[in-house]
Amino acid sequence: MWDNQRHQDVNEPQEAVVIDGISELTTNDEANGGRVADAALVVEGDRIAWVGPSRAAPPADRRVDLAGRAVLPGWVDSHTHLVFAGDRTAEFEARMAGEPYAAGGINVTVQATRAASDADLEGNIERLVAEARRGGTTTIETKTGYGLTVTDEVRAARLAGRHADAVTFLGAHVVPAGADPDEYVALVAGPMLDAVAPLVTAVDVFCEVGAFDEAATRRILDVARARGMARRLHGNQLGHGPGAQLAVEYGALSVDHLGFLTDDDIAALASSWAGAGRGTVATVLPACDLSTRMPLAPARRLLDAGAVVAIASNCNPGTSFTTSMAFSVATAVLQMGLTVQEAVRAATLGGAIALGMDEAGWLDPRGAAQPAVGVIGPGRRADFQVLDAPSVTHLAYRPGVPLTSAVWRAGIREV
Amino acid sequence: MWDNQRHQDVNEPQEAVVIDGISELTTNDEANGGRVADAALVVEGDRIAWVGPSRAAPPADRRVDLAGRAVLPGWVDSHTHLVFAGDRTAEFEARMAGEPYAAGGINVTVQATRAASDADLEGNIERLVAEARRGGTTTIETKTGYGLTVTDEVRAARLAGRHADAVTFLGAHVVPAGADPDEYVALVAGPMLDAVAPLVTAVDVFCEVGAFDEAATRRILDVARARGMARRLHGNQLGHGPGAQLAVEYGALSVDHLGFLTDDDIAALASSWAGAGRGTVATVLPACDLSTRMPLAPARRLLDAGAVVAIASNCNPGTSFTTSMAFSVATAVLQMGLTVQEAVRAATLGGAIALGMDEAGWLDPRGAAQPAVGVIGPGRRADFQVLDAPSVTHLAYRPGVPLTSAVWRAGIREV
Ligand SMILES: [Zn+2]
Ligand SMILES: [Zn+2]
Repeated sequence: MWDNQRHQDVNEPQEAVVIDGISELTTNDEANGGRVADAALVVEGDRIAWVGPSRAAPPADRRVDLAGRAVLPGWVDSHTHLVFAGDRTAEFEARMAGEPYAAGGINVTVQATRAASDADLEGNIERLVAEARRGGTTTIETKTGYGLTVTDEVRAARLAGRHADAVTFLGAHVVPAGADPDEYVALVAGPMLDAVAPLVTAVDVFCEVGAFDEAATRRILDVARARGMARRLHGNQLGHGPGAQLAVEYGALSVDHLGFLTDDDIAALASSWAGAGRGTVATVLPACDLSTRMPLAPARRLLDAGAVVAIASNCNPGTSFTTSMAFSVATAVLQMGLTVQEAVRAATLGGAIALGMDEAGWLDPRGAAQPAVGVIGPGRRADFQVLDAPSVTHLAYRPGVPLTSAVWRAGIREV
Repeated sequence: MWDNQRHQDVNEPQEAVVIDGISELTTNDEANGGRVADAALVVEGDRIAWVGPSRAAPPADRRVDLAGRAVLPGWVDSHTHLVFAGDRTAEFEARMAGEPYAAGGINVTVQATRAASDADLEGNIERLVAEARRGGTTTIETKTGYGLTVTDEVRAARLAGRHADAVTFLGAHVVPAGADPDEYVALVAGPMLDAVAPLVTAVDVFCEVGAFDEAATRRILDVARARGMARRLHGNQLGHGPGAQLAVEYGALSVDHLGFLTDDDIAALASSWAGAGRGTVATVLPACDLSTRMPLAPARRLLDAGAVVAIASNCNPGTSFTTSMAFSVATAVLQMGLTVQEAVRAATLGGAIALGMDEAGWLDPRGAAQPAVGVIGPGRRADFQVLDAPSVTHLAYRPGVPLTSAVWRAGIREV
């Protein structure tokens, strides 16, 4: 699966492939206004070498004719929880029969995950990453958080790092059954983080009633910041809380969920981008909102205020058991008031920004420096998907129809 | 594609195939409570020969092991408009940018459809039926209604009859641009219906502000009833109107859309099933409601009142350009308050009842008598789908993930 490794290890001359006959190329690149009609692109090795109108395409070793299909960046899914065993079908059925979601359900998955073999866990991750790839996802983050012991969290990070593009430490997912909350926070911020740190690129906390309160969240974020590790938060999911404001205060890469935001929260997220440095991405999780029958996050208001928005799947067995970014994009358009272009951008470049992968040189979990993702432009990683449709509009115009017909990742066609 | 023809024409011995390893078989059959766990079924020719627990499965010529997958009836999509050319991407984009849906947009498709060749129109129908089949649909109704001249409506019915399982006459879709409304209604109820009647099984009217009012609807339904033709209606889509009540009064097979219903409308639909005869099915179209940003139809209230509910795609280029019944089922569960079992039943047996196909002997457009569909039971047509999941719950638990992995229709595996 890791074709970029192949490209780095083998010293073969790099074939140039021109992908032509693109009815509409969504680039996310300001250089061409984000979109090129009747376009072509050239792939060399694992990178994009050229983008432009079809009539100006340079010669190449090989030509692929898409016959009028749309091309867009592969989805960058910046929020998933793929290291788990079992599922929570019964809990889902109960919720659909009227019972509300409670964070405590996570412990059901913790038990199943601890009891599972490495092979079973890895099989699940592989299966879900492959499913995501078929759906157009070329970059995927995943989190620990169903282990909740030092040993189990390290195991989760290790297994995740073999298949995901970024691994986030979420020891602070829920206080495990029977544990003392204060002692558990001390464990997470101390020995657990020490053990898992070499395997992950960010630290995350589920800041919510029933999970971790403001004091506990601060305690963990303080340690993460002191160690120079990137921060992210789950916040404002089940009700209004301090998550969004804390994320901005701590310079988190993103804060995710955001069903309950005040105008002040939205203003804080928007103004985090006012200075010279990076701000905090507001990540919305439409499939999770629907699967928990909670309010859809105010993505329209966030964009209008000037926030940077990402859309992610939140694939996990409890609250959003889907890898389908197309479903989330369609929901964002049909029900959250985004245009298709805004939703597609949020699910590609937005996710890349949330993961710090919009600039070249980020390190994948195998330690390899990677080209930037989220944009189709010269020098970027050649990650893109082909739709069986003439424009990205069809992603919302044709909801539920699997439109992704080909997926290229790091210059290799994988689907 | 018409394997049932093959079965009827060729006098070959009928192989018995046992489909085993079914983790959960949704039958819609009262004989087994609608569901059998750890089940098997036997297909003989184009029919189901046996259904029951795996351990009791009879011997057969061939065995297919599903290794713990769920099986359910193929979707019965009782409401589509597949005979069209062009698309309405620009209108969709405008609507997502805030412009409301107006029925007048239909005339854009009418122009494109009239201008298209038979081959182009038929290619579109075939493509969409094949797409629906891949998504699990084994029975599909479609309508005329983008011709709106005698010649063009006859052409639409003829082409539809080659690929759909039922063809409905919808000359009363919209008053064509430039036509006098009264004269057009007279044309529809007179020469147009005369010409198209041998090719269709039902007459439909779009009873809505901007389309046909109560008087016009009555005029057409009176003629349909006098000719002994089945009736159906589009009603209560864009606002409250007389559609639901008229459908019950005229003994229509179904009334479809239903975003705006009073308690009286719901009571009328429910009580239509109180007598000995057939009542009027309440067909909801979740993908259309979302695609037009209109209120979701009150399917929960309809079921609670005792109405018979169907779920259909309403696939058409203006207001719901999707063949995905799985998307509609997921929406019905996540957002309309149905249980997965209720939604699956509405999208299978509900559709069959709405089309009068729940009893054996219905005639397909090629004139062949067909076994009943919508139920997996002895003597029924062998129409079913296999999910890459252990239960139908996953259709809502895993929204957007294409779970249908095999589709059998009339005893033949087509997908
Ligand atoms: Zn999460
Ligand atoms: Zn319709």
